[in-house]
Amino acid sequence: DYAKIDTTRTRRTGYPEVIYGAGKTAEQIIGIVTAMKERQKSILATRVDSKKAAAILKTLPFLDYDATSETLIARAKKVEEVGNIAIVTAGTSDMKVAEEAAVTAEIFGNHVTRIYDVGVAGIHRLFAKLEIIRQANVVIVIAGMEGALTSVVGGLVDHPVIAVPTSIGYGSNLGGMTPLLTMLNSCSSGISVVNIDNGFGAAYNASMINRLISEAHE
Amino acid sequence: DYAKIDTTRTRRTGYPEVIYGAGKTAEQIIGIVTAMKERQKSILATRVDSKKAAAILKTLPFLDYDATSETLIARAKKVEEVGNIAIVTAGTSDMKVAEEAAVTAEIFGNHVTRIYDVGVAGIHRLFAKLEIIRQANVVIVIAGMEGALTSVVGGLVDHPVIAVPTSIGYGSNLGGMTPLLTMLNSCSSGISVVNIDNGFGAAYNASMINRLISEAHE
Amino acid sequence: DYAKIDTTRTRRTGYPEVIYGAGKTAEQIIGIVTAMKERQKSILATRVDSKKAAAILKTLPFLDYDATSETLIARAKKVEEVGNIAIVTAGTSDMKVAEEAAVTAEIFGNHVTRIYDVGVAGIHRLFAKLEIIRQANVVIVIAGMEGALTSVVGGLVDHPVIAVPTSIGYGSNLGGMTPLLTMLNSCSSGISVVNIDNGFGAAYNASMINRLISEAHE
Amino acid sequence: DYAKIDTTRTRRTGYPEVIYGAGKTAEQIIGIVTAMKERQKSILATRVDSKKAAAILKTLPFLDYDATSETLIARAKKVEEVGNIAIVTAGTSDMKVAEEAAVTAEIFGNHVTRIYDVGVAGIHRLFAKLEIIRQANVVIVIAGMEGALTSVVGGLVDHPVIAVPTSIGYGSNLGGMTPLLTMLNSCSSGISVVNIDNGFGAAYNASMINRLISEAHE
Amino acid sequence: DYAKIDTTRTRRTGYPEVIYGAGKTAEQIIGIVTAMKERQKSILATRVDSKKAAAILKTLPFLDYDATSETLIARAKKVEEVGNIAIVTAGTSDMKVAEEAAVTAEIFGNHVTRIYDVGVAGIHRLFAKLEIIRQANVVIVIAGMEGALTSVVGGLVDHPVIAVPTSIGYGSNLGGMTPLLTMLNSCSSGISVVNIDNGFGAAYNASMINRLISEAHE
Amino acid sequence: DYAKIDTTRTRRTGYPEVIYGAGKTAEQIIGIVTAMKERQKSILATRVDSKKAAAILKTLPFLDYDATSETLIARAKKVEEVGNIAIVTAGTSDMKVAEEAAVTAEIFGNHVTRIYDVGVAGIHRLFAKLEIIRQANVVIVIAGMEGALTSVVGGLVDHPVIAVPTSIGYGSNLGGMTPLLTMLNSCSSGISVVNIDNGFGAAYNASMINRLISEAHE
Amino acid sequence: DYAKIDTTRTRRTGYPEVIYGAGKTAEQIIGIVTAMKERQKSILATRVDSKKAAAILKTLPFLDYDATSETLIARAKKVEEVGNIAIVTAGTSDMKVAEEAAVTAEIFGNHVTRIYDVGVAGIHRLFAKLEIIRQANVVIVIAGMEGALTSVVGGLVDHPVIAVPTSIGYGSNLGGMTPLLTMLNSCSSGISVVNIDNGFGAAYNASMINRLISEAHE
Amino acid sequence: DYAKIDTTRTRRTGYPEVIYGAGKTAEQIIGIVTAMKERQKSILATRVDSKKAAAILKTLPFLDYDATSETLIARAKKVEEVGNIAIVTAGTSDMKVAEEAAVTAEIFGNHVTRIYDVGVAGIHRLFAKLEIIRQANVVIVIAGMEGALTSVVGGLVDHPVIAVPTSIGYGSNLGGMTPLLTMLNSCSSGISVVNIDNGFGAAYNASMINRLISEAHE
Ligand SMILES: Nc1ncnc2c1ncn2[C@@H]1O[C@H](COP(=O)(O)O)[C@@H](O)[C@H]1O
Ligand SMILES: Nc1ncnc2c1ncn2[C@@H]1O[C@H](COP(=O)(O)O)[C@@H](O)[C@H]1O
Ligand SMILES: Nc1ncnc2c1ncn2[C@@H]1O[C@H](COP(=O)(O)O)[C@@H](O)[C@H]1O
Ligand SMILES: Nc1ncnc2c1ncn2[C@@H]1O[C@H](COP(=O)(O)O)[C@@H](O)[C@H]1O
Ligand SMILES: [Mg+2]
Ligand SMILES: [Mg+2]
Ligand SMILES: [Mg+2]
Ligand SMILES: [Mg+2]
Ligand SMILES: [Mg+2]
Ligand SMILES: [Mg+2]
Ligand SMILES: [Mg+2]
Ligand SMILES: [Mg+2]
Repeated sequence: DYAKIDTTRTRRTGYPEVIYGAGKTAEQIIGIVTAMKERQKSILATRVDSKKAAAILKTLPFLDYDATSETLIARAKKVEEVGNIAIVTAGTSDMKVAEEAAVTAEIFGNHVTRIYDVGVAGIHRLFAKLEIIRQANVVIVIAGMEGALTSVVGGLVDHPVIAVPTSIGYGSNLGGMTPLLTMLNSCSSGISVVNIDNGFGAAYNASMINRLISEAHE
Repeated sequence: DYAKIDTTRTRRTGYPEVIYGAGKTAEQIIGIVTAMKERQKSILATRVDSKKAAAILKTLPFLDYDATSETLIARAKKVEEVGNIAIVTAGTSDMKVAEEAAVTAEIFGNHVTRIYDVGVAGIHRLFAKLEIIRQANVVIVIAGMEGALTSVVGGLVDHPVIAVPTSIGYGSNLGGMTPLLTMLNSCSSGISVVNIDNGFGAAYNASMINRLISEAHE
Repeated sequence: DYAKIDTTRTRRTGYPEVIYGAGKTAEQIIGIVTAMKERQKSILATRVDSKKAAAILKTLPFLDYDATSETLIARAKKVEEVGNIAIVTAGTSDMKVAEEAAVTAEIFGNHVTRIYDVGVAGIHRLFAKLEIIRQANVVIVIAGMEGALTSVVGGLVDHPVIAVPTSIGYGSNLGGMTPLLTMLNSCSSGISVVNIDNGFGAAYNASMINRLISEAHE
Repeated sequence: DYAKIDTTRTRRTGYPEVIYGAGKTAEQIIGIVTAMKERQKSILATRVDSKKAAAILKTLPFLDYDATSETLIARAKKVEEVGNIAIVTAGTSDMKVAEEAAVTAEIFGNHVTRIYDVGVAGIHRLFAKLEIIRQANVVIVIAGMEGALTSVVGGLVDHPVIAVPTSIGYGSNLGGMTPLLTMLNSCSSGISVVNIDNGFGAAYNASMINRLISEAHE
Repeated sequence: DYAKIDTTRTRRTGYPEVIYGAGKTAEQIIGIVTAMKERQKSILATRVDSKKAAAILKTLPFLDYDATSETLIARAKKVEEVGNIAIVTAGTSDMKVAEEAAVTAEIFGNHVTRIYDVGVAGIHRLFAKLEIIRQANVVIVIAGMEGALTSVVGGLVDHPVIAVPTSIGYGSNLGGMTPLLTMLNSCSSGISVVNIDNGFGAAYNASMINRLISEAHE
Repeated sequence: DYAKIDTTRTRRTGYPEVIYGAGKTAEQIIGIVTAMKERQKSILATRVDSKKAAAILKTLPFLDYDATSETLIARAKKVEEVGNIAIVTAGTSDMKVAEEAAVTAEIFGNHVTRIYDVGVAGIHRLFAKLEIIRQANVVIVIAGMEGALTSVVGGLVDHPVIAVPTSIGYGSNLGGMTPLLTMLNSCSSGISVVNIDNGFGAAYNASMINRLISEAHE
Repeated sequence: DYAKIDTTRTRRTGYPEVIYGAGKTAEQIIGIVTAMKERQKSILATRVDSKKAAAILKTLPFLDYDATSETLIARAKKVEEVGNIAIVTAGTSDMKVAEEAAVTAEIFGNHVTRIYDVGVAGIHRLFAKLEIIRQANVVIVIAGMEGALTSVVGGLVDHPVIAVPTSIGYGSNLGGMTPLLTMLNSCSSGISVVNIDNGFGAAYNASMINRLISEAHE
Repeated sequence: DYAKIDTTRTRRTGYPEVIYGAGKTAEQIIGIVTAMKERQKSILATRVDSKKAAAILKTLPFLDYDATSETLIARAKKVEEVGNIAIVTAGTSDMKVAEEAAVTAEIFGNHVTRIYDVGVAGIHRLFAKLEIIRQANVVIVIAGMEGALTSVVGGLVDHPVIAVPTSIGYGSNLGGMTPLLTMLNSCSSGISVVNIDNGFGAAYNASMINRLISEAHE
């Protein structure tokens, strides 16, 4: 009796419950997926490391595991992808968080545009992609180290920016606290922030906005 | 030569530059307002305390000062207010930040609905207003002390929530760091966060989203 | 000569010494249990990981090991369980701490009611259990991430709430410092707080209160 | 429309709403007291500094102001004081917080025993008062600097201890964070903790426990 | 006997002792200046607020006070200014720190180029000045809030960048700790950092580098 | 009934109670001094600002006030000063703390040698005084900013060093936390540390050591 | 050329260089011991884990390894142990740090008295040993969790107390920062503090004091 | 498409992109090196642990791996080494960071002088090397624990000092935050600071300065 699945979440908040795998055993995840499976077509579990995933896949072979984003997915046959969410990263090392965001956004029915490794150390890489970024309804900016990319993007686009600090860095980076603080104190406007490494949360927010705009356009 | 006004900001980001009054002298604010006045109809300066405001109003009597939100405003004759942004506070003491958000949202052309003092110590007050909150395109939740209201609202609405921690509290509240951390770690999804006491920033984000939805509906 | 067992603790504080296993070797725990066994019927050791437990059980097979709560127990034949302590958790991942509390409370002679996974992301789950919670003499609320559940429960019950932050979370959760701060700054009254993950301490406090009330009723 | 008074709080939590004066103007406090006065006999406002109090007393002369605890009170004619709460402080400087606790406990109908300035620098002062402390149903221990008194009392009594860290100290005391951490990490059991300087919160908790025991005895 | 003037500092480190005014009384500063005056032509005292300055000027009228940078100066008749140090600020509010740097650099015999208010919220302002910045031997970048400007400049110039975080900002800015951490964790290379608001220290470092290059060119 | 004077402290710890003036009113200090006066000849009160001191001196004119160290003293006619405690400061601004230490040490009957303003920025000033420092039984080193002087002294003397961090500095000095951490992590041995600005505590420790050595010599 | 052995340290500070093993390879430690061996009879290396020790003992079999304190020792034939240092711990788990202190003090020629597991949760255990503790020239108090034992001992003895916080604890203990802060803010006087887990440093300080007193007695 | 190599970096900043190996897989590093190899002769990858290096060397055997500095290098045939950078460390354990700096400086074409293990606990070791250090164009000072060496060097040389704090230490060292804060708050001038353990960054800065001076001399 370890879990009370939130069966009315879609009705209340627009999206079904997503399983946060980090604090749970393989057995608990299997139990929750099995119970959910009866009611919903798409299932998403995040923060499932490869060892735990292997154990789960033995019992639930219909799930797909994505090793980069560490997500387990059961995808409804046809999810139409609407609108456009741009996911922008500062460096190569931010990719794991970026893919958690991308996978989440896609299973929630959003079209995703990936623009990776355009950090401010070589800012021309960002300008080369600016027009593509400006076409998105929402922009997710993902950066570790000092997270300065967020402020630069925030000053150049007229759509909402969701900022995700990552734990990439060392020393006084303090496990991502530095880019988190950077993003919260940005001199550019139009930026709001989620927790360190929280690709899922950024995608959830971006999805809400992208779908409201897309649906309004219909 | 203390300021370079950002004259293309509206074109780039959708909104003109807003003056952050906290670190500037009355003379500097007068200079910036005077320069801006030539190009734009609405002007907003935040964080202007009453003493500084009095000095500025002597030179620039066309400005309006709002003492609760500590803002100076020159309002274009007719700003049509579109859509709906709900501004929800936990306590009476959060009102100063809430009004900074409200004034900003209104000058940016958004319709604002105020729901104040509905913190979780008496959660029935929130439920009594839930239907009104659910009608908004975006919800701004403002709370000090421990900031738990954000998570409760986040679990009950299907529109984006912008969370603003306030510095209301004492001791281990740490000047608002506690509600900031609460909001960033929320177990509810759909919440993104701005800096402590940053009513302006929340309104800016909410305005972007509200207007994109409102314009798409047109 | 590594330990001085506190043989008068029951007389002074109402309960015998409990062994804190985390900083001790298997040999030291065996030594302390053996010495205690001569004087008291029930023995409790907390924070004993499964490997250390296996080593101890070889020498002291009369002990019971509970893997979820990581406790070793020698139970006096008949412990009558009086009163009622409700143990409420926000999520599935808080169960380890909750069971440390439950096992402690039970060995101390309290009746325990478990209500798990009713966090505020789906607050209707809490309301569904509210009448059961209200019947308890004391309520232990256990939550990680942002810990907002505590404030909601505190605003709805008229009995003391003991709050336990857990280290469940990541990034700016800071190993449980975030829910700890949340609980200390709650806008609801009637809440007092123990250390992060300290299920034992919460149960000890709750037990003192529950038994004082139960005994007064007699 | 700055405040929504929580009119059902007594029914839900056992005690009426108490006004937290720190973040409110004199006008707002007058408004809230006036509204409350229609429904309840006793009124308590905490954190009202002497200047604000003077302004309020002009309009509401029936209130009493206590300068040490910085509280404003309207007391129902006869509050019978039941049970026994001991309030113990480490030093003379903790008296302000202690009196906030004492005034709150008394208006909530509890008998209070004050034992001040018995810190561990001269521990014989504590032992001289130990029998008096042991007679209480609940003990509130209030200490600044390093807060060690809490652990000593916790190891000597068999009733619940509510610990209140104070901001008395300097340097690495960090505004009370040091005694707060001390109290949360106590090696003695039976201690739970409230926010720095939160005499009100300690009294609220103690009152809940003291009255449950006292009522059970009846 | 409160001060031991470091009379061999110029020989050891290239520059004479500079008086740090913050922790000293007007009397102490007068005493130190008087003693120094016998041995050196230029004197610089930083962090002298206007009140303290007025008191000192009464006794030592040959000093010049600069109110923006809060410095007191006795300037040797002809200081030839060599090379080129660019001082770049993100905002208008960073000017006080920038002028402390500029005044120090000038009294140490460096040519200074000021480029103020070119923060990343309007990054085109920076690009408009880039060629001027690139002509300097050393670049001092001064920024508060999140300090992102440093990383952008660092990625665009091939000369050393000395970064100065300022205490401009609020909330989670933590008195300048946020831009300090940003600058230390920059993804751009070629940046080294001095203490928050330490315009003097940045100028000292820049001066050493600028003069070594300038002298080598001779 | 705000204070319980610790009348057996001299017997227990070697020195009488010293009044910590910071958290007390003038009235309370007058009361405590008056009570103490009956039993002991020397009285010391620390952290008494000049305003509070003036009020106390009106009632108790036999006290002496020292404005630099902010201490109030009643000195027994003849205190013989034994042994030798060296008090070494890094800068002029550390003098206030140094004098609190010196006054305390002298009233406790120790001979004090003052060596001020010999910080490592001009390390030859320290070497010039090294033989004098080496003659002391104990050395107190007082430094703010980064506190490096302590490690240098610790590596050069063969007597105990008591280190006192001061709150002199700004920005990332964090109110003295930086020199405190420096001193605790010193690569030199023989250094122990007291709280930030705690001149009194350093003198107390040094006095214990100096007198034990002096008495053993007799 | 990785190490410059400090061959004049005994002359300067009274004791030879001690090897800090934590940051060094087995090869480096072997090299340093071999070089030292030519000049001094006793050698001490601390923080050498059992694996590294095994590797070193193969090459240098004349060394002794003590697994509890993780020290490697070459002991001069006859070290006369003078005076008396009491080492007092709060709990069983503090023994590792206590033995690092004891081994260091003994190799430096001090007589050591061990009093372990007398923490304030059962304060009668301390009183039972108080006369033994009072006979020491110096007292080292070692405690984790909240470290309150230090203040209690400090209020009861008239000799210097060296306090060592340990990293025993969890959650808001913050790896020993909590008892460190407790000890620095003690309301008892006569306490000075060394770094977390620094048994060596405490013994070094205590040894200096104990030997100065012992030698003075001769 | 995980990386966008910054092909114009040499033109913009004077040096080519260096691969930061910590957050990348062996495959990603192989991909980036292969792409770079086409355009540049020297390649440097830092933070490559020995296991990852072994995997990379199988595919790219032309690379050299240096185990102390954990760097992978492809060196252009003849790099002329100009000028002089002194690299000074406090202890043996700082060598890993020092070698990251040395390897980087050498591949960038600078002459390097290594002076290791001259920390302030035995300050005569530093003075013995002072003339050698003074001959360098730039000095890199690397220190863990409390980092005091930086201030001493800063007070003795008239060339720029780049300070690198290391994570060597324990307890309140806080993973290098203590020496970082020490260096930022130095009472000596002429010191600028890079991130904890950032040998690469220090070398990059020093290289810029050394080469500007060396080139100016030509
Ligand atoms: N899980 C736990 N968390 C906190 N304290 C505990 C725990 N288990 C036991 N204790 C307490 O820790 C003390 C044991 O300290 P020690 O002397 O180190 O064994 C006992 O007196 C218990 O009251
Ligand atoms: N001194 C105090 N410290 C903490 N909480 C308080 C204090 N005084 C009153 N409160 C609580 O704070 C709440 C008031 O919040 P507000 O709506 O801002 O007035 C009340 O419900 C009280 O329970
Ligand atoms: N400047 C000071 N810093 C730290 N402790 C002090 C200081 N002056 C006095 N004390 C100590 O603080 C205790 C006073 O506590 P209290 O009961 O609040 O007066 C005395 O016993 C002194 O030992
Ligand atoms: N050890 C290091 N520490 C800090 N920065 C580094 C280090 N090595 C390389 N870098 C920088 O980090 C950047 C690489 O970022 P990335 O795109 O993640 O490879 C390069 O541009 C380098 O300038
Ligand atoms: Mg890259
Ligand atoms: Mg309210
Ligand atoms: Mg759940
Ligand atoms: Mg007292
Ligand atoms: Mg600007
Ligand atoms: Mg000086
Ligand atoms: Mg024990
Ligand atoms: Mg060494």
